[in-house]
Amino acid sequence: MNITALEKIALSVRALSIDAIQKANSGHPGLPLGAAELGAILYGELLRHDPSDPAWADRDRFILSAGHGSMFLYSLLHLSGYKDISLDDIKNFRQIGSSAAGHPEYGMAGGIEATSGPLGQGLAMAVGFAVAQTMLAARFNTAQHKIVDHYTYALCGDGCLMEGVSAEASSFAGHHGLGKLIVYYDSNKITIDGSTDIAFTEDVAKRYEAYGWQVLRGSMYNFEEIARLTSQAKAETQKPSIIILSSIIGKGSPNKQNTADIHGAPLGPDEVAAARANLGIPGDFYIAPEAQDFFKAKQTEWKKIRADWQSLFEAWSKENPEKRKEWDEFHSGKAAPANLPAYNEGDKIATRTAGNKALQAITAVNRNLAGGSADLKGPNAVGLPSDAGTWTKENRAGRYIHFGIREFAMAAICNGIALHGGFRSFCSTFMVFSDYLRPALRLSALMKQPVVYVLTHDSIFVGEDGPTHQPIEHLASLRIMPGVHVLRPADAEETAEAWAMAMEYNQGPTALALSRQNLTVFPKADPEWKNTIRTGAYVVKQTEGEPDAVIIATGSEVGLALEAAAKAGGKKLRIVSMISRELFESQPAAIRDTIIPPGVRVIVCEAGVRSGWERWAKVEDILSIERFGESGPAAKAAEHLGMTSDALVKIIG
Amino acid sequence: MNITALEKIALSVRALSIDAIQKANSGHPGLPLGAAELGAILYGELLRHDPSDPAWADRDRFILSAGHGSMFLYSLLHLSGYKDISLDDIKNFRQIGSSAAGHPEYGMAGGIEATSGPLGQGLAMAVGFAVAQTMLAARFNTAQHKIVDHYTYALCGDGCLMEGVSAEASSFAGHHGLGKLIVYYDSNKITIDGSTDIAFTEDVAKRYEAYGWQVLRGSMYNFEEIARLTSQAKAETQKPSIIILSSIIGKGSPNKQNTADIHGAPLGPDEVAAARANLGIPGDFYIAPEAQDFFKAKQTEWKKIRADWQSLFEAWSKENPEKRKEWDEFHSGKAAPANLPAYNEGDKIATRTAGNKALQAITAVNRNLAGGSADLKGPNAVGLPSDAGTWTKENRAGRYIHFGIREFAMAAICNGIALHGGFRSFCSTFMVFSDYLRPALRLSALMKQPVVYVLTHDSIFVGEDGPTHQPIEHLASLRIMPGVHVLRPADAEETAEAWAMAMEYNQGPTALALSRQNLTVFPKADPEWKNTIRTGAYVVKQTEGEPDAVIIATGSEVGLALEAAAKAGGKKLRIVSMISRELFESQPAAIRDTIIPPGVRVIVCEAGVRSGWERWAKVEDILSIERFGESGPAAKAAEHLGMTSDALVKIIG
Repeated sequence: MNITALEKIALSVRALSIDAIQKANSGHPGLPLGAAELGAILYGELLRHDPSDPAWADRDRFILSAGHGSMFLYSLLHLSGYKDISLDDIKNFRQIGSSAAGHPEYGMAGGIEATSGPLGQGLAMAVGFAVAQTMLAARFNTAQHKIVDHYTYALCGDGCLMEGVSAEASSFAGHHGLGKLIVYYDSNKITIDGSTDIAFTEDVAKRYEAYGWQVLRGSMYNFEEIARLTSQAKAETQKPSIIILSSIIGKGSPNKQNTADIHGAPLGPDEVAAARANLGIPGDFYIAPEAQDFFKAKQTEWKKIRADWQSLFEAWSKENPEKRKEWDEFHSGKAAPANLPAYNEGDKIATRTAGNKALQAITAVNRNLAGGSADLKGPNAVGLPSDAGTWTKENRAGRYIHFGIREFAMAAICNGIALHGGFRSFCSTFMVFSDYLRPALRLSALMKQPVVYVLTHDSIFVGEDGPTHQPIEHLASLRIMPGVHVLRPADAEETAEAWAMAMEYNQGPTALALSRQNLTVFPKADPEWKNTIRTGAYVVKQTEGEPDAVIIATGSEVGLALEAAAKAGGKKLRIVSMISRELFESQPAAIRDTIIPPGVRVIVCEAGVRSGWERWAKVEDILSIERFGESGPAAKAAEHLGMTSDALVKIIG
Repeated sequence: MNITALEKIALSVRALSIDAIQKANSGHPGLPLGAAELGAILYGELLRHDPSDPAWADRDRFILSAGHGSMFLYSLLHLSGYKDISLDDIKNFRQIGSSAAGHPEYGMAGGIEATSGPLGQGLAMAVGFAVAQTMLAARFNTAQHKIVDHYTYALCGDGCLMEGVSAEASSFAGHHGLGKLIVYYDSNKITIDGSTDIAFTEDVAKRYEAYGWQVLRGSMYNFEEIARLTSQAKAETQKPSIIILSSIIGKGSPNKQNTADIHGAPLGPDEVAAARANLGIPGDFYIAPEAQDFFKAKQTEWKKIRADWQSLFEAWSKENPEKRKEWDEFHSGKAAPANLPAYNEGDKIATRTAGNKALQAITAVNRNLAGGSADLKGPNAVGLPSDAGTWTKENRAGRYIHFGIREFAMAAICNGIALHGGFRSFCSTFMVFSDYLRPALRLSALMKQPVVYVLTHDSIFVGEDGPTHQPIEHLASLRIMPGVHVLRPADAEETAEAWAMAMEYNQGPTALALSRQNLTVFPKADPEWKNTIRTGAYVVKQTEGEPDAVIIATGSEVGLALEAAAKAGGKKLRIVSMISRELFESQPAAIRDTIIPPGVRVIVCEAGVRSGWERWAKVEDILSIERFGESGPAAKAAEHLGMTSDALVKIIG
């Protein structure tokens, strides 16, 4: 280990971070200065990576869970040779168009494995990466060729460890014995409000032992120790490891280090000067020549390591052509079309159940789809075919994942699985509890990860469980999140297409809104409905000539609209099933107008808040629910809340 | 201790639960059957309460965090004499109109201290109750008279302990040494998906020790042991206690106990018969006479205990008339009007900063307002006047609470503080992280608790922190939650009124959307604007005669609209600041029409998704942001995203 070079790397991280943040007049110097030594040894010695190929499948992953310390990551990516973070990007830190954005953003540059900043989620995503690693290894490694053999590293601060999502994910990781997960805890005892003494004095080490982790301790400023502890972490193959590193926030800034002031504000010109003098930084955006030389030599070394892996991979491919074919399928990002279940008109089946049939069919031909539920496997109806197996310590090839009652971590872990590469992931809970995982769904959308969220019990028709379990505002709240596909199928046939649409869409998450209650499979007026539905809406019931009104309904309320139309005999009514309002609204007017002719009266019916539907209908023409639900059998609750075909008939007039 | 009577109470809990759930054909027998013994001793011996006065200020509180086991609570409330849960209610369990709703709902019956069901939150609210108890005791107890001296008890299952929110709240409770908080953990090792072995094998006891709790263990089925452990818990005054009780889910159901089947489904007629035979239950909705007799005697005893307290309270009142006056104010549910800060036209001040001035003024005259931030005291600008103090182990009279980086627990704890009685509470974080606490906000609304959520950094004008920190869909997502007041003031003057409105509103939570950036105090055309704003909107800029268009804007975009109007010289434009869309929409048409004349063209400008505004303007007349944000200085980010006065001028045409 070249200690001098590592010291110079750390110095360069500090120099770049100080200057970038000062120039932007915005940013968080505390972490990059405080943890520069860890960064130096990580990117210099510990990580098995190749900056010239950031997509190398068997690279080690590093996730900066404390995403506010983004200059830590950018400095190291730049120094070690990742082309996407240029010195210009660093000089334009936090400016429009720079890949060195305020917080690390996935997709902006190779080497940024995940978008982080919302605290705790980086650690939870790291758990997902580690899950995916085991699944990939179990499927593809052979006795002769270990083509999947990488680690997942993460760096957390106090904030990450206070957030509940990291607790959930860590308990999960301990239970499942993720031996290739190594978390560094930058323990500097300072948060924005001051010392951790004011709010966070728990015994973190003991807590992680309780989760079943290996807990190691050391100093942030001792390279040999960090190397030794990391070796110990690797040697423990049955448990994830957390390495608690005592550190000093903002180390190197003589007057601000070890205070809350340095957490999230530039040093200011005077302190920049003082820090430079203190550290021996000769100029602006300084990179020590020794650091440069070190990484230059390393780059050759890393290329060779990757080339060796490539040879291994080729040898493996030759001996295992079937596995190789599957490997390529796994990494194609494309789903294979499934033999979807068929139904007959009049079949009565809950869309959650129909969802399960579709999921099972899709699972059979997409062997890289894995996921599960937050302890609601039966109620969410997300069991997989038995040959898919359950993912456990003993069976890493299993595909059903028991997440436990941990919705938020579940979704973040699914993000990690998707980000890792090779897998599609899904997760499930009651729709009302989508609130528990909402921050992770937002990251799915922001990172454009095609995680499928199976959200069952999608309305007040849940019934007896009452208002805490009846979604009211949730459909609307999911729809308004940019990039989230919300699909609410109206019967079993639509559900099969919905799952197919979810798999076809690989640019972001899909939320499937599925019913608890049975729905009747209805005849579809549009003979091409399986195509048309991909525009977000199609005509379920046609009427001759100009309709008196078009009724838009979604999910279970399509059946209710059909019932109302039958009751409202004399009226010429067209009924539209709008499986995805956003998808429909994104169509060209020409397409929209064939479904909803301009000028015609539009009535909307949906068992949730009306917000967003005012674009299509007058408030008085919308049958919605603008209050919390009520505990009672579904039909009684619906009556109580006015969500009935009679109420719709009244609106039709 | 009358063991025989306690056994008969437990038997009655089982009998009522079995029958109510079977009759409803819906519900969760696992917990009430498995924990009936705890219920018997809690309601029979341990709780200091008086069913004839459920609002008694110094009663012990019990929160059923595992809310799905609602029949546990209803049975015990009925048996012990709470009038609001009649036998008829139990016979109508989970039916419309019964106070025995699917999950316990606050407000439905005395003795239901909180709405529970969304897992983990009951425990977090219990922490809030315990916080409030210390605050009340510190303010009002005297050396001579200890008028506040009650405990907070909670019952949790595996689900509660897997949820991240309970981890956050428990770490907080341990740090703050909440000695009067006693949590029972019904450890039955079964969840919906099966054994806890599949997902939850952490060492819970060790974890709680790590949090700084006293950890005790025993059997659910040994009354003496439970009594002894509870005494031990009370004896430890410096730490909260968790009592881990080994139990058998569904105990008494001979063929289903100790299986996941009994968690959440009725026993079915055969198993009802088998359970009755097994337990010795002679008939429908059986209540053992011994249980009845026991509680009858107890009721007299409890009345006496409360009467003794009442005498104590009167004696204290006589000696401490000033304190008594304050006590009454604290419990009135009404806020005192504050001397709000005044501003001058042209003042440039961020609404978060103006919010702080208002908060400080309000705090000065409302000594029962307490709260804080999730480690963003400075950025959220929620510091209190120094004489308000900080709530710590050493200063229980302090009013500023350091919640740590635990948004979800923070909000749930604030719910608990509000529910306890005597206090108003507020919490704060960046608006984008309202997603982290959303499930608790939903409970604030459902329980109609006037918690104030201070959500700063309310738009893309956050700037450099980028898309993870820039709210886009959040205003819309908060507005659609039933019962949540969302107020987005446009300058410092409006901010003062917004805080006043938040305090006036005591029927639910208020979300204050406040800016990070400076906003200019603008002249208001409506001389009565301080009244009119309470309708949700008022006219900021008037025009002579019929306007060509009305521009609705909120928050920082009111300034942007004024700028655009100045640029669009020739047009006759009226500008409306709509501090609360929902409040405005709830006004009679006559009031709405004075602000927005029917038929006039309406333009809307808001730095977030347009969803919900389509009621007021055509899509092409709405200046909104329909994508995630971008990292860059605020003005550059706004330009990049098209949120500028020039873009608005273009729409004006």
